[in-house]
Amino acid sequence: MIYLDHAATSPMRESAIEAWARHAGAVNPGAQYASGRKARSVLDSAREQVAEIMGADPVEVVFTASGTEADNVAVQGLFRASSSARIVASAIEHPAVAETVARLGADVELLPVDRSGHICDLSALDTPAALASCMMANNETGAIQPVEQIVARATAQGTPVHVDAVQAVGKIAINFHELGVHTLASSAHKFGGPRGAGFLLARRDSPVQAVMFGGGQERGLRPGTADVASAAALATALGEAVHEMEAEYARLAGLRDKLWQGISSTIDGAVLNTAEPALPGHCHVSFPGADGDSLIMLLDVAGIEASTGSACHAGVNRMSDVLSAMGIPEADGLGSLRLTLGRTTTSEDIEEVLRILPGVVERARSAGLR
Amino acid sequence: MIYLDHAATSPMRESAIEAWARHAGAVNPGAQYASGRKARSVLDSAREQVAEIMGADPVEVVFTASGTEADNVAVQGLFRASSSARIVASAIEHPAVAETVARLGADVELLPVDRSGHICDLSALDTPAALASCMMANNETGAIQPVEQIVARATAQGTPVHVDAVQAVGKIAINFHELGVHTLASSAHKFGGPRGAGFLLARRDSPVQAVMFGGGQERGLRPGTADVASAAALATALGEAVHEMEAEYARLAGLRDKLWQGISSTIDGAVLNTAEPALPGHCHVSFPGADGDSLIMLLDVAGIEASTGSACHAGVNRMSDVLSAMGIPEADGLGSLRLTLGRTTTSEDIEEVLRILPGVVERARSAGLR
Ligand SMILES: Cc1ncc(COP(=O)(O)O)c(C=O)c1O
Ligand SMILES: Cc1ncc(COP(=O)(O)O)c(C=O)c1O
Repeated sequence: MIYLDHAATSPMRESAIEAWARHAGAVNPGAQYASGRKARSVLDSAREQVAEIMGADPVEVVFTASGTEADNVAVQGLFRASSSARIVASAIEHPAVAETVARLGADVELLPVDRSGHICDLSALDTPAALASCMMANNETGAIQPVEQIVARATAQGTPVHVDAVQAVGKIAINFHELGVHTLASSAHKFGGPRGAGFLLARRDSPVQAVMFGGGQERGLRPGTADVASAAALATALGEAVHEMEAEYARLAGLRDKLWQGISSTIDGAVLNTAEPALPGHCHVSFPGADGDSLIMLLDVAGIEASTGSACHAGVNRMSDVLSAMGIPEADGLGSLRLTLGRTTTSEDIEEVLRILPGVVERARSAGLR
Repeated sequence: MIYLDHAATSPMRESAIEAWARHAGAVNPGAQYASGRKARSVLDSAREQVAEIMGADPVEVVFTASGTEADNVAVQGLFRASSSARIVASAIEHPAVAETVARLGADVELLPVDRSGHICDLSALDTPAALASCMMANNETGAIQPVEQIVARATAQGTPVHVDAVQAVGKIAINFHELGVHTLASSAHKFGGPRGAGFLLARRDSPVQAVMFGGGQERGLRPGTADVASAAALATALGEAVHEMEAEYARLAGLRDKLWQGISSTIDGAVLNTAEPALPGHCHVSFPGADGDSLIMLLDVAGIEASTGSACHAGVNRMSDVLSAMGIPEADGLGSLRLTLGRTTTSEDIEEVLRILPGVVERARSAGLR
């Protein structure tokens, strides 16, 4: 089985599984007795590790149960804290941000992207807003966005910026304080941590308000008994991911280039939708005339697992909003494949894909004609 | 080490740890390829198991990341779905409900409790409301509430009922459909499942609206990549808890009675705040004149772990709202101990506590005089 859907979820690292198992017995870190204090110290170290790696202060790290939750707390929380009814967001946000923005009854203005999948016009940021939200790297194409420029333009108007760094954390260098954003969302299972764990970085002075209420844990932004084992596993996975980052960036970029060169030299009309700057493991390709679902199914039969567009839209047979925003014609977009490489991907995997894919595309193109 | 804080969090069952480890590799259950379908089938079985055990339909099971989250989705979700601004809740709700209710800007009416910790006046339910919220069993005293009567009175006015069953699930028999409530919240770590996992039962026809937005998973009520391993571990723990329930009820009630008899015969002025009907493992006792923090610390030094009042309030040196609502004088309430027994508690544990506690109370009473 060749797994090429690392952007959807990546296998948990052995070290993270071990960290989880080691702390599965951790009790309530709010308790005052010995085992409670021990749990608290495990949670504190996890928080310090994350803070150190991300260039944040420990108090700015809010452990959440997912990337979606971190996005929601940031976007809803910044919106509620503001008297402005205006939100600026990129046109290619993940549903965790896009749907949230859409439900707030806000006055929403979208930052457009060009054919390369990068935001190309920042002028909407020149009017103040409750917040500006932009992902660090897109989950479908992998395109890395001009967050520094967005922060500069937004900050000039006093607009706080939220960055959804779910795809980027552990893959490219990020320093929270240097970036100057108010909030940043991350999800553990994208970098080899457990599912059901993530974190929000929220500046000390950020007015972000809670979405859920309860016992007041995690600065009141994520109440409920802490999941110490998952926090420890998350920190372990993040540490390992960042430690390997440079070497892994080069290795994945090399494999990805080999994959695309192989595809473009053997499959007529293939179009690469991933353009630099981009995450090293993303290879988003259109095969005009092919049927997307057939591509996935035929690859699956051959033991190759990949996704069409965003995993979160799976099952829906329409072009993704991201491809639409990029101006990709529907006929091309529907026949596209997101191949995302990761830690477990080998050179042999890529060779096998290159052996199988031409036949698959040919058959999916006949299916597309039906 | 004798752990008597099972109501705060209970050690994970071996079977649940194994289930978690077995499925730690599960990928995105929304994916269409083989390993995605496998993850989907693990998630579906977990959902079916929970539904079967709880007397609900699988579609009514919404996996969440905690009890707090389940409470928030239910309370905020029912409130938003209604045009009424009125909420009725018991005076002894956990902060996950009480704080949420307090933040909605609703017109809140509280159902009072008597000295036994049971709701004693239901008349507030005779005026329609957006929702009525009542816990199945209280986390501090263990008192089981008259939920059937509450449902009958609320339903007569068309008011939907939410029940926080976080303490009760796996300890006493519960059938969601027979109960007739709209929503029910549960948290896995209270019955030997993992932290960071819970479920909401929400009636098919319940209008409950989401608190967080994203990829639409879990009926849109809990969006984000599913945590399949935690769901499987939760279902395994729940199955085991319910399987052992009758025998464990009798065993714990016997130990609890032995504990209280020993306390009342050796410690002057001890008052039992847990009154029947109550969960079998709860023993909430006041030692008038003793200092609560000293009780916890001295027990801790002797290797006995227990909590004062609710775990979620730890660190705050004032009487809990629950004890206030019960009309317990502050002088008594501050010197109280919540001893909660569970799966790992043995008869020898109880004997050791009875050996240590009289001296501890004596010293905590001198501390109380200072
Ligand atoms: C009655 C009750 N409701 C809700 C909760 C919240 O559960 P969790 O801490 O798992 O979010 C708890 C436990 O702390 C509880 O005892
Ligand atoms: C860019 C981006 N944001 C947010 C999310 C949501 O993360 P999660 O599914 O862990 O809640 C994802 C992944 O699905 C993502 O790729």
